[in-house]
Order: sequence, then structure tokens, then C-alpha cells
Amino acid sequence: MTDADQLHRQSIVIDGLQCSDFNRELFEEARRGGVTAINCSAVLWENFNGGIDYVSMWKRLIRDNSDIVIPVRSVADIRHAKDTGKLGIIIGWQNTSPIEDRLDYVEIFKDLGVGIMQLTYNTQNYSGAGYLEARDSGLTGFGREVVSEMNRVGVLCDLSHVGERTALDAIAHSQKPCAITHCLPRGLRDVPRNKSDEVFKACAEKGGVVGTSLFAPGLADGNEATVASVIDALSYTLDLVGEDHVAIGTDFSLNRPRPGPWLLWANKDKGTARTLTEFGSVKISKPLGIRRIDEFPNLTAEMVARGWSQERIGKILGGNWLRVLDTVWG
Amino acid sequence: MTDADQLHRQSIVIDGLQCSDFNRELFEEARRGGVTAINCSAVLWENFNGGIDYVSMWKRLIRDNSDIVIPVRSVADIRHAKDTGKLGIIIGWQNTSPIEDRLDYVEIFKDLGVGIMQLTYNTQNYSGAGYLEARDSGLTGFGREVVSEMNRVGVLCDLSHVGERTALDAIAHSQKPCAITHCLPRGLRDVPRNKSDEVFKACAEKGGVVGTSLFAPGLADGNEATVASVIDALSYTLDLVGEDHVAIGTDFSLNRPRPGPWLLWANKDKGTARTLTEFGSVKISKPLGIRRIDEFPNLTAEMVARGWSQERIGKILGGNWLRVLDTVWG
Repeated sequence: MTDADQLHRQSIVIDGLQCSDFNRELFEEARRGGVTAINCSAVLWENFNGGIDYVSMWKRLIRDNSDIVIPVRSVADIRHAKDTGKLGIIIGWQNTSPIEDRLDYVEIFKDLGVGIMQLTYNTQNYSGAGYLEARDSGLTGFGREVVSEMNRVGVLCDLSHVGERTALDAIAHSQKPCAITHCLPRGLRDVPRNKSDEVFKACAEKGGVVGTSLFAPGLADGNEATVASVIDALSYTLDLVGEDHVAIGTDFSLNRPRPGPWLLWANKDKGTARTLTEFGSVKISKPLGIRRIDEFPNLTAEMVARGWSQERIGKILGGNWLRVLDTVWG
Repeated sequence: MTDADQLHRQSIVIDGLQCSDFNRELFEEARRGGVTAINCSAVLWENFNGGIDYVSMWKRLIRDNSDIVIPVRSVADIRHAKDTGKLGIIIGWQNTSPIEDRLDYVEIFKDLGVGIMQLTYNTQNYSGAGYLEARDSGLTGFGREVVSEMNRVGVLCDLSHVGERTALDAIAHSQKPCAITHCLPRGLRDVPRNKSDEVFKACAEKGGVVGTSLFAPGLADGNEATVASVIDALSYTLDLVGEDHVAIGTDFSLNRPRPGPWLLWANKDKGTARTLTEFGSVKISKPLGIRRIDEFPNLTAEMVARGWSQERIGKILGGNWLRVLDTVWG
């Protein structure tokens, strides 16, 4: 075992976001990849009933695989997952659509185990704009109340697919750190899905974390990207905001065929209206060397190869997520 | 019977909007007031199920009072109401909240008899901003699809409580005339609920209609207003957009105690979040002489007293509504 492997195995490794269609095989693969916990965030356009169904699906999946996975509601649960060699499941959302028009539902879902909610997904909702809306409304009046309610009950506010102005407003309004769980820097590739230095810095200054993603269309090398391209993006963000505010959110969508019904649904506004992007049907390759969860140690190896300290790598792999989750979940 | 009374009795009189809590007594009062049809638009924050319940309530009310009221789905139905001396009921909404996140639901509700939908009520929704949102998103991507769907299936798009930028966008995007069913000119009183000359003119230029309302806080004289104040506002709008584009939308909220639970709910964002205005609890007097539906002839008398032609008065009382409804409903 190399030093890098050893460092990876001893670290708490948290994946800031996946929207994979999980089953026992993927849980086992994540454990092989040395992953301690994953923000499992496949809610995109669901309404209240859909949000409830998502919680129920996870309760069943966790119960049926309780020998290898545990639900995560606290940082102690993540440490317990590490100690017992199980995979920790953080239930997350990529849209606040399941709370519909009811502030009260934020707490309802927190009680049911949802620990991370992205404020908007791609387009306008009651709280603000997504990054694909032609104009950005900024954080709406209702959105201010939603963010305050997340702060009160302890839900991490994710801003990855959120419009820039809405994201800046949410960071400014929030009393707690926010996260950008899976996003790449526009400074390296100027595409709409990537975010500006300004947003990354604002997130970090409030104590938050920016998770580097593996989304090829946002990497400088596109479908030709490798592990090195990912660490280049991570390095850019690190230089911008410092090592206490960078992390990893793979955005793996394993078991979701492309093209396929789930991704085509994902790329329509609200799942049924106009098609927003071609990402549901075009070829998108994950970077060579990190195409599956079990290749996660390759990211650590590349960070070691760049001479980064064990302390820094530990923060990136999981330490920074632990700090933010502890602050927000309390 | 005066000439004005006679003119009123022979005219088709359409009230562009009421949110009254109707019962048989109010139907009878409306008939005494010479009213031919009313846009009954008390949906404010309802979701899909609430929208269905509203349709069901009207089906029951119309069935239970079928000797004096009829449902309106076409201009022919309004003419039939006039011929038979019954009151025509147009089912309307003040928010597109009941369609939730589903474009398809526009046609579902049109099939169920909803003929007029206000795009937004006071705050942001999926389609755009209301007039009380601090920033106006403009018409969203989804909102463009909603307006197109209203055009396709034949629903009149109402912009009364809609934010200015969203309203201008909707008018520009719509293939059919829109309406501002109940609104006063900001040129006479500069309050947020009133609308600018620009919006009124844009609505008229597309063939639409602006309904003058009786909302005291928007009239120059506030709670001291009289019938003359209302006709002053109507006259201002008429001078701005011409006699083919002005009408009346009383905004009566009869049988809704103020303060009372319905108005307090109405004045919270989405009915349960923060309170948006004090209109649910402060004293608001309808203008002296037009405080109830049965005083409707007093508006006609004041128009006659100003020397307006029978033709002009006929357009204002109902002719302009008939033209727009015929164009949109087809």
C-alpha cells in the first residue's frame, strides 16, 4: 500500500453530492473506494409527495442494507460510520420544490432526515433563480424565510445550481455557512454551470465549503479530462479561497443511463416542461481515472503527488465538510 | 327611471373581478345592481387541490342557485345571462399557484371552467414576480410556457397584482390580449399596488382591457373616496389608453370580514409565511355611493353626468370585456 493509499484509508472521506441510483452494489463500491459518507441528492423536481417518497425509499434501502450502510443525521454519525467501516448516507435534495409553498415543511423534512437542501435547481422557484434562468430574481422574500428556516432547524443550504445573484443573496442573508457542494470554477472554463470567483469567495468568507465536481463540460479539458484536470480545478479554487474551504462533490450519476428517462426528465424544467440543456442526451465522460466511486483513491494520490500536506488533503477529503455540517446541524 | 338607470339596465354589465364570499343573497344583490356577469376570482394561494376545491364549490353554488345564476364559458353564455336575467359566473383565479409545477394543468382547469387566471399574486411564483416582490424577476422561462399555454387553450391572462416587469414581459410574449382586471393608475396615486402608464398603455396596445377598481388605498382620496373619485380614475385611464380599453373591476370582497381570517391569510405570502401588507386588518372603505354591488348603477349615473356617450359607457360597462373575452376564449 502506498503512502497515498494509506492516507486515503485513514481519512474521513465525504462525497459532497451524488445523484446515483443506489443499490447494494454501489454501496459496496463506495466502501471499496474508501468513502465514509455521501450526500445522496437525487431530488430535482419532486413536489411534496415526491420528497416524502424519496425519504421512504432511503429508509427502505438503508434498512435492507443495514449491515453496510447507516443513516447520517450528525457529524457523530459520520465518525461512527468511519469507526465501523460502514457507508454513511446523508439524505439531500437538489431543489426545495418538495416544500412547495409551505415554510413549515422545511422542519418536517429535517425531522425525516433531510440534512442538505439546494435552494433552487436550474430555474426559478419560490425561493430564487437557478443558473439557467435568463434573468436572476435574486433571493425572493419567501426565499429569505426559507433560508432562515434552514438556519433555525439545521439544514445545510446548497447553492450549486443556483443563479449567481440568488446565491450571493442567500450567502449574505444566511446566519450559517452555506455550501456549493458540486461546482467548478468559471475562471478555468467560462460556462454557465460554473461559478464566478466572487461567489466562491463569498461562500468561503461566510465559513462555507466549495466542492469540486467531476462534471466534464465544466472542466478545462471537457470529455478529455483526467484526474489531473480535476485536481487542477480543485487547486484553482484552493488558491482562491484557501484550504479550509475546498472539498469534493463528485456529482456521480451512476446507474442513470445517458440518454435515458431520468436524465431527460432532469433536463426539462420541472421535469415536464421545455428541455433546458442537452446534458440528458449528449456524451459526457467522467475524467479518466475517476469514472467510478471505487477510483476515489486516485484523487488522493494526485494530491499527494503534488506535494500537498496530509493536513490539507484531510481537510479536502472530509475535514471541511465535517466542520460545516457540525456548524449547521449543531 | 332616469336615462342613466335605463342605460344601465339595458347594458351588458361585467364586473372584471370580485373576491366576495358568494351566496344566494349576493347573487340577488348583483342582479338588483344590474350586473350581467362577474369574474369570481377568490383563489389567491391555493395549490392544485385547492384549485379543484374552488371549482367544486362553484359547481355546487351554481347548481343550488340555477334559477338565478349560470356558468359562463363563452361570450354567448354572457349574452344568454343578459337575455334570461340571470347572473353569469366566470370562474377566475388571482394566482397560477393551482397549476403548481405542471403546464398540463392549465388545460385541465380550462376544461373545468376556469376562464381567467392572474399570472402571479403579490409575490414570486414559478411564472414571475408579484408587485410586492422587492425585485422583479420578469417573466420566467416557465412563465413564458404558461402564457403560451393560456393562449393555446383560451384562458385570459390577468396582470393586476403582477410586478411591472413581469407584466410587460407577459404582454410582449402573449399572442392574445391580456387584461388588468382591477387596478388603479399610479399617475393619480403613487402606491405600489397601482400601475404605471407604461403598463396600462402596453396592455391596451395589445388589444387588452384595464379594469378600474374601487380599492380605496389606490384612489386619490383614499377612504374619503366617492363615486366621483372612481370615475376620475377611470377617466385618467381612458385619456391614456382610449375608450376601447377601459372597464370596471370592483374588487368587492363582500362577506369577508376585515380584520378576519380570510383577509389575514390573503395578506401573508402563500397564506402562511410573513405578512406582506396591512390590508388584512386596517380599515378600508369602499367609495361612498359604491360600497355594495347593488349600487353599481351609481357608476353609470356619474358617467352619464359627465356627458359621456352611450356608446362609450356601453363599452366600459361590458362591451370591452366582451371583445377581449371573445378574442381569448374564441
